[in-house]
Amino acid sequence: MAITLSEAERVLQAAKAHAQELGIRVSICVVDPRGDLVAAVRMDGARWTTPEIAWGKAITSAMYGVPSATLQERANSPVMQSTMLRLGGRFVPQQGALPIKRGDEVIGAVGISGGPSQQDEESAQAGLDAL
Amino acid sequence: MAITLSEAERVLQAAKAHAQELGIRVSICVVDPRGDLVAAVRMDGARWTTPEIAWGKAITSAMYGVPSATLQERANSPVMQSTMLRLGGRFVPQQGALPIKRGDEVIGAVGISGGPSQQDEESAQAGLDAL
Amino acid sequence: MAITLSEAERVLQAAKAHAQELGIRVSICVVDPRGDLVAAVRMDGARWTTPEIAWGKAITSAMYGVPSATLQERANSPVMQSTMLRLGGRFVPQQGALPIKRGDEVIGAVGISGGPSQQDEESAQAGLDAL
Amino acid sequence: MAITLSEAERVLQAAKAHAQELGIRVSICVVDPRGDLVAAVRMDGARWTTPEIAWGKAITSAMYGVPSATLQERANSPVMQSTMLRLGGRFVPQQGALPIKRGDEVIGAVGISGGPSQQDEESAQAGLDAL
Repeated sequence: MAITLSEAERVLQAAKAHAQELGIRVSICVVDPRGDLVAAVRMDGARWTTPEIAWGKAITSAMYGVPSATLQERANSPVMQSTMLRLGGRFVPQQGALPIKRGDEVIGAVGISGGPSQQDEESAQAGLDAL
Repeated sequence: MAITLSEAERVLQAAKAHAQELGIRVSICVVDPRGDLVAAVRMDGARWTTPEIAWGKAITSAMYGVPSATLQERANSPVMQSTMLRLGGRFVPQQGALPIKRGDEVIGAVGISGGPSQQDEESAQAGLDAL
Repeated sequence: MAITLSEAERVLQAAKAHAQELGIRVSICVVDPRGDLVAAVRMDGARWTTPEIAWGKAITSAMYGVPSATLQERANSPVMQSTMLRLGGRFVPQQGALPIKRGDEVIGAVGISGGPSQQDEESAQAGLDAL
Repeated sequence: MAITLSEAERVLQAAKAHAQELGIRVSICVVDPRGDLVAAVRMDGARWTTPEIAWGKAITSAMYGVPSATLQERANSPVMQSTMLRLGGRFVPQQGALPIKRGDEVIGAVGISGGPSQQDEESAQAGLDAL
């Protein structure tokens, strides 16, 4: 079953609070297992491109069911490059997104963009901890 | 000045509450004056394409500074058609989005998709009323 | 032979001066016979999409060697629609652009977007008059 | 606040004069902070693709608020690659563009393409010096 909007909003708010503590300005995007958008915010001052990058990271993480960071070293492989092309750039195998699970099942993912990617991921983890 | 995230979240929550009262399942998207995403949600059960359509309606409304409904009759003009193409479909001159103003200045727009477009717009208005 | 940059700048400045007199805020684009950009400006306050629309009108006018207004009634024909698609929206068969000729030869075109399209074309004519 | 057209024209003319001194044939594009076009020229003899490349470099520089040259080493990162795709190629993390600032605020950027990229950037700097 996919993440509900009410769960996604809890993830979003907790991730946002953590980013604020870190002093970074980010966009945060929660997607369902298919990568379709459930909820998103861009914090004041975050670059205009960050919502799409956060979304792309979340899609990537939901697709493979793993943190997007673990795909980074394969980012130039033919499969990753072709996926990026087919999805029109909305696929970003770079640190900053984590899968959201219920038990063993992937029910969605949260992706973040705008800070150093280590801090993006840390904020994503803070989001997951709120569930 | 652009709408802030905290203002956008108030618009979003009020529009969502109104849609729930109407019993429709929609996506709601708030953008800044340039059409870039500030906040978005997809209600449980809303079709996966609705976030992009809500975004496209909001972009349209922010671009012209008018309700997207007023552009509907010109939707087949060459300028509208070419804009839809250049923006890769993320331009939807159809009822369901309203500009957000501070005094005379357009500070963003809210777009909704998923219900009958008259009810989409009515929910958008409920969002504006929360500001 | 194509229009030179120095000629294009004279067209641009004269068209801009006329638009200022009319009190409209427009983008103006001069292209060569192939439709490639030679010079462009967006006046303060003109909508962000207007440079691309002005460019699209100019491409249209240079392609056919006629005012873009004369193509408007055929805008929904299969050829026009397919051209708009192939050019990714950068083809706008609507009033506001005029071909630039040296004798009988089309050496470029000037396209304008942002005002009522009759005034866009009138400003384009003022640009041509400067040559 | 965004750069005005009159400021952009001064940047453009000074950059063009410098390029002429260097004997290179380039396109020059000035954008606002969002990357939307404010003014552009293609010098006689510059390749037809150079206006779009200059625009892409300027968008890149405005987006990050830094010289586009500083992003060149990260050009193959997933975020850069995905951004290039999402923007349909209109993102060029390569030397030749500089941000335009008023105090600490990025008010736009100027991008140049057509010469050796070191000389493109040098001409962009000559443009900035005119402000």
